[in-house]
Amino acid sequence: MDAKPSSDRLTLADIRAAHERIRERIHRTPVLTSTTLDQQAGGKLFFKCENLQKGGAFKARGATNAVFLLSDAEAARGVATHSSGNHAAALSRAAKARGIPAYIVMPNNAPQAKRAAVERLGGKIVFCEPTILAREAAAAKIIADTGATLVHPFDDFRVMAGQGTATLELLDQAPDLDIIVAPIGGGGLISATAVAAHGIKPGIRVIGAEPAGADDAYRSFHSGKRIPTVQPNTIADGLRSTTSERTFNEIRSHVDDVVTVSEESIIAAMRSIWEVLKTVVEPSGAVSYGSIVDKKIDVRGKRVGIILSGGNLDLDKLPWMTT
Amino acid sequence: MDAKPSSDRLTLADIRAAHERIRERIHRTPVLTSTTLDQQAGGKLFFKCENLQKGGAFKARGATNAVFLLSDAEAARGVATHSSGNHAAALSRAAKARGIPAYIVMPNNAPQAKRAAVERLGGKIVFCEPTILAREAAAAKIIADTGATLVHPFDDFRVMAGQGTATLELLDQAPDLDIIVAPIGGGGLISATAVAAHGIKPGIRVIGAEPAGADDAYRSFHSGKRIPTVQPNTIADGLRSTTSERTFNEIRSHVDDVVTVSEESIIAAMRSIWEVLKTVVEPSGAVSYGSIVDKKIDVRGKRVGIILSGGNLDLDKLPWMTT
Repeated sequence: MDAKPSSDRLTLADIRAAHERIRERIHRTPVLTSTTLDQQAGGKLFFKCENLQKGGAFKARGATNAVFLLSDAEAARGVATHSSGNHAAALSRAAKARGIPAYIVMPNNAPQAKRAAVERLGGKIVFCEPTILAREAAAAKIIADTGATLVHPFDDFRVMAGQGTATLELLDQAPDLDIIVAPIGGGGLISATAVAAHGIKPGIRVIGAEPAGADDAYRSFHSGKRIPTVQPNTIADGLRSTTSERTFNEIRSHVDDVVTVSEESIIAAMRSIWEVLKTVVEPSGAVSYGSIVDKKIDVRGKRVGIILSGGNLDLDKLPWMTT
Repeated sequence: MDAKPSSDRLTLADIRAAHERIRERIHRTPVLTSTTLDQQAGGKLFFKCENLQKGGAFKARGATNAVFLLSDAEAARGVATHSSGNHAAALSRAAKARGIPAYIVMPNNAPQAKRAAVERLGGKIVFCEPTILAREAAAAKIIADTGATLVHPFDDFRVMAGQGTATLELLDQAPDLDIIVAPIGGGGLISATAVAAHGIKPGIRVIGAEPAGADDAYRSFHSGKRIPTVQPNTIADGLRSTTSERTFNEIRSHVDDVVTVSEESIIAAMRSIWEVLKTVVEPSGAVSYGSIVDKKIDVRGKRVGIILSGGNLDLDKLPWMTT
C-alpha cells in the first residue's frame, strides 16, 4: 500500500491504493442530481462535485497522494511545483498536512488571489519571470538547492492515481452509469478517470471534454499522435495545458472519445449549474457539462456521470456580467 | 402514519411521519463542511444545504407533506396558496407529483422569474392587485369556487412538520451537534427545527436568526408577546413575513434564543458561502450563517448545524455588484 505505482502505466490498483491513502484527508464530495437538467438533456445526470473538494478542486486528491507517498527522508526535503493555479494551492495544503515545505514557483505577474491562496496554506512562493523557461529554471534551481521532490500537476503517476479516486467514489455513489464525462487540460484527470472506470465497469464509456479554444487533446486523440496546443484561447483557464506523453498514452488506451465545447456553451453550462444545481463552478469546471449543453454527446436514455472539477473564480468578474 | 397532526402542537412524531411520507419525493440534501470557515468561527460548522433541495429551497418539504396528507377526495379538488415565492413553486411541484391542481394567487406585479417558475411546474396562476387584502380575497374566492385546500406557507402544522424533516436528516448526518441555527421568516422552519432537535437531543440549543431589518420574531421572543413586523426592510426577501400565533407559540416553547443579523453581515455571509463552500445561497438562505459572521452566537469550541435555507436568486443582480 505504500509502494509507488510500480509499472509504466497507471492501474486501478494504484488508484485504489491512493484512495486508501488519502480518504481521511480529503472530502468525499457529494453527487448532485436535478430533474430539470435531466429533462433538458433527455438522460439522467449525476454531477460529481469536485468543486466542493478541499481547496475547491479535484487537485487536492493528486497532490495529497503524491505528498503522502514520499518516504520520510524524501518528505523532509519538501516538494516543489511550477504551477500557479489549483494544483499549487493543493500541493501547499498537502505539504502543510504532512508538515513539510512546499516550494511554489510562480510568475511575478500571477494574480494576487493565487498568491494569497498559496501563502495562506503555508506554501513558499519563489517568483520568476513569466516564461516557461524561467519557471522551469527556477524549479530546477530549488530542487538542486533543497533536494525537494518535483510534483508536476499532471505528468506524474502519483498525481494521476490520486485524481482517479473521484471516479471510485462516483461509481460507488451512482453505480449504474453508462457514461462518464471529465474535462481535459493536461490529461491527468481524464486518463485516471478512464483507468478507474474501465477497471471497475469494462463497458462504460469515458469521454473527455475540452474547450474548442484549447483542443490539443481532441486533435491528438483523433489523429493518433500528440499535437501540442499552440495558442490556447479559452475562458477555461484551468484547461489550457497540453497533454504529456504519459497522459496521452493513457488517453489513447483508455478514453473512448474526446469532444470539444464552444465558449458559449461553457458559459451557458456554468450559468445553468449555478442557477439550477446551485453550485459554484469555475469555467473549467463546467466544460464537462458543457459538452452536453453543446450536444456533443448523445445522452438520451443514458445515465451519465459528470465531473465538475473546480469552483475557484473571482466573484466580481462573472462571464455573464457586462462591465 | 396517514393521520394529520392530531394535537394543537407540533410533535416529533408528526415530523418523523412527515419524513416517511416525503423522503422518496425530496432530496436528502448534503451537509458541507469547511476547515477555512471553521477556523474563522472557532467552532466546527455543518451546513445543511437546503439550497440544494428540489426547487432550491426547504419549502419542498412542507408543501410535499401537506399535499400527500390530503385524502383522495380533498386532493382531487386541488390546493391553493397566496405566497408568490419559494413556497408557491414548491406547492406547484408537489401538486404536480400528486397529479392535482395548484392554484397560486400572485400579485400582478410579481417578477417574471417567479411567474415562470410556477408555470413551469404546472401551477395555475391567479393574478390579483398587489395588496394583502386582494390576495386573501382572491384565495378565498378560489377556495369557494373549487373546494381547494389552502396550504399556507408556514401557518399550518402539515407544512411545519415537513420543514422539520431537514433537522432529522441533519442530526443523522452530524449527530453530535451542540447548536442548530435556522433563519426566521414566518417561523415555520425555526419552530419545526426546534421541535425536532429537542425531541431527539434535549440538551441541544436551537437559535433563530432574523434580519435586523425584519426583526419581529426577535422583538416578540424577547418581549414574550407577538409583535408584527411593521415595515420590513432587508435584502433577505424570503424572511420578511411575520410569525403567526401558531408558529410563535412553538418558538416561545422550543427555541432557545433569537438573534438579529445586519444587512452587511448577511451579504458577507452569502459571499463567503459562495467563495468558500462553493454553494449558491440567496440572501435569506445566508442569514443563519450571518449570525455567526455577525458574532451574535458564541460558537467557540462548539459543533454547530447551520441550515442554508434556499438558493434562488437572479444571477444578474448580485449584492456585491455595483451597477
